[in-house]
Amino acid sequence: MKKTGKRTYCLETPVTVRGWSAVVGKTEKSGPLGEWFDHFHTDEYLGKKSFEEAESELQKEAVDLVKKRSEISEKDIDFVFAGDLENQCAGANYCMRHYDIPYFGLYGACSTYAEALILSCMSIDGGFANNTLALSSSHNCTAERQYRFPLEYGALRPQTAQWTVTGAGATVLSLRYDASKPRISRFSVGRVVDYGVKDMNNMGAAMAPAAADTLLTFWEDTNTRPEEYDVVVTGDLGKVGHDLMRILVREKFPDFTNTYDCGRMIYDRTEQDVHSGGSGAGCSAAVINGYFFPSLMKRTYNKILFVGTGALMNTTRIQQKETIPAIAHLVEIEAGEI
Amino acid sequence: MKKTGKRTYCLETPVTVRGWSAVVGKTEKSGPLGEWFDHFHTDEYLGKKSFEEAESELQKEAVDLVKKRSEISEKDIDFVFAGDLENQCAGANYCMRHYDIPYFGLYGACSTYAEALILSCMSIDGGFANNTLALSSSHNCTAERQYRFPLEYGALRPQTAQWTVTGAGATVLSLRYDASKPRISRFSVGRVVDYGVKDMNNMGAAMAPAAADTLLTFWEDTNTRPEEYDVVVTGDLGKVGHDLMRILVREKFPDFTNTYDCGRMIYDRTEQDVHSGGSGAGCSAAVINGYFFPSLMKRTYNKILFVGTGALMNTTRIQQKETIPAIAHLVEIEAGEI
Repeated sequence: MKKTGKRTYCLETPVTVRGWSAVVGKTEKSGPLGEWFDHFHTDEYLGKKSFEEAESELQKEAVDLVKKRSEISEKDIDFVFAGDLENQCAGANYCMRHYDIPYFGLYGACSTYAEALILSCMSIDGGFANNTLALSSSHNCTAERQYRFPLEYGALRPQTAQWTVTGAGATVLSLRYDASKPRISRFSVGRVVDYGVKDMNNMGAAMAPAAADTLLTFWEDTNTRPEEYDVVVTGDLGKVGHDLMRILVREKFPDFTNTYDCGRMIYDRTEQDVHSGGSGAGCSAAVINGYFFPSLMKRTYNKILFVGTGALMNTTRIQQKETIPAIAHLVEIEAGEI
Repeated sequence: MKKTGKRTYCLETPVTVRGWSAVVGKTEKSGPLGEWFDHFHTDEYLGKKSFEEAESELQKEAVDLVKKRSEISEKDIDFVFAGDLENQCAGANYCMRHYDIPYFGLYGACSTYAEALILSCMSIDGGFANNTLALSSSHNCTAERQYRFPLEYGALRPQTAQWTVTGAGATVLSLRYDASKPRISRFSVGRVVDYGVKDMNNMGAAMAPAAADTLLTFWEDTNTRPEEYDVVVTGDLGKVGHDLMRILVREKFPDFTNTYDCGRMIYDRTEQDVHSGGSGAGCSAAVINGYFFPSLMKRTYNKILFVGTGALMNTTRIQQKETIPAIAHLVEIEAGEI
């Protein structure tokens, strides 16, 4: 078996990241990473009749763009692994009507994109696919009214709350070796961790222990240390969760500083009214595809760890006074050899 | 690559179905398959405070039972692939808090269990797991109030509507060969099919084309015919959808009769007020684990095709006058050699 330690897997041959795309909304375009995204929309409806239709369209644009970039046709994509935050993952389901590609629907909340990368790698390395598509999205307006309140209420949010990213990211992963492209050789699969946080406006605190758990497991499993990576980037813990995660990791690695968080990176918290930072299944998907893959191409980074984190509650459970379970999946991504 | 034809995969070594369990509610216990289920509850709350908690408990009971039956400890289960119909798949998320097992959350509506079987096979055959757990559930009371109306309304339902099964099914799949146990060698991955059905009370009609599409693709991909199987069992099309699926398949195979549907089998439609039959992510999970695996052990059947079908809408999309996308994943299951 390809397993190392408790929850980490090493591929015999690295899977190549063949192409990537990131499409976002206007708030994300106005943020510090704005110039990195491939395409943006000022209209939250994307010209559609509903925010929900708009979210599926965001995914579709990301798919069409990554297909073109990767110079791959629909028939050469063996599987799509996709999901989003809409009830019953409707964003991805309705997007996938447009394509004749075998489809696995996933739900991992904001960890969905990392989950899709891992299952892509497993299906390619296992001999079931030559090319796969990993895809996820979120839309601020679909998420706010589904998880919190109708936008029209203008409800106030506490400082620990995160701002759901309007964005989609798509990646084509491939068996075919390309020495210039980023690649994935190792990953760790998350388990459900619940530290008893009940505040749906503080998902960062709920997810931080899961992120720390998976990171510490990976370093133990692989006998590596944080400083061997240019950066350890978490999915979307936001400021509150990211600070908490660092405290937890520093119990084992006191010098741990080389870490970013997609939720912190995507917005300028001093200029933009996003409180603790970004979140949503489109957050890490947009940041990894928009910023990190291109930066790995440019050799700004040579080796990173990406930890997608997800808060696994729903509104009904929170109304029932339940706590928030969380999960974190980890992927090691390296720059190409040339 | 292990692909045959368009969407079918053949494993070099069959994956063994090591153990199974099915836990249901009282309506399912009163149905024609009642005696087959491992355990049942007359209390819809299972002694918990909410129907949602009860649904997670159903899953937990199924997991604990299958672990015992398979003589496997938690640490030897490499992955859980699980999901359900609750928003954000909370049924599985909250169940998995109780276990220290790497977890992939899935959403395929009523096809979730079939999706879990396929990803289990891929991860085992691909060298990533020795044992996996495939798990899904539904609960009539969580589903009715989430998808339709609060139960207290006593809303009337049309004859095309299906009755959401209260039940969970769990399966341990294994690399370790056991000649006495059922095994899986081939499967086909579904794609999204949308024939324009808009009636959420007629999901059978929405799913039938997806089931026919995957079945016809499998027979073409493998150069086999329906009569080579003891039975072709669909996930949960109910009477309406199952009849429609047969019409579609008969265009190619006019003599196609050897087919059952989990949604039709689980209830007695003449005695029980279930309209078109059963549905829900727990329906096929309970029927395959409760009835089919034991029947394959007894050699009542030697070779079956199981097609899990899912209707991929949500209530918001239906309120927006959208149509219902559907998907169907297929698994070929054979009895053991001895």
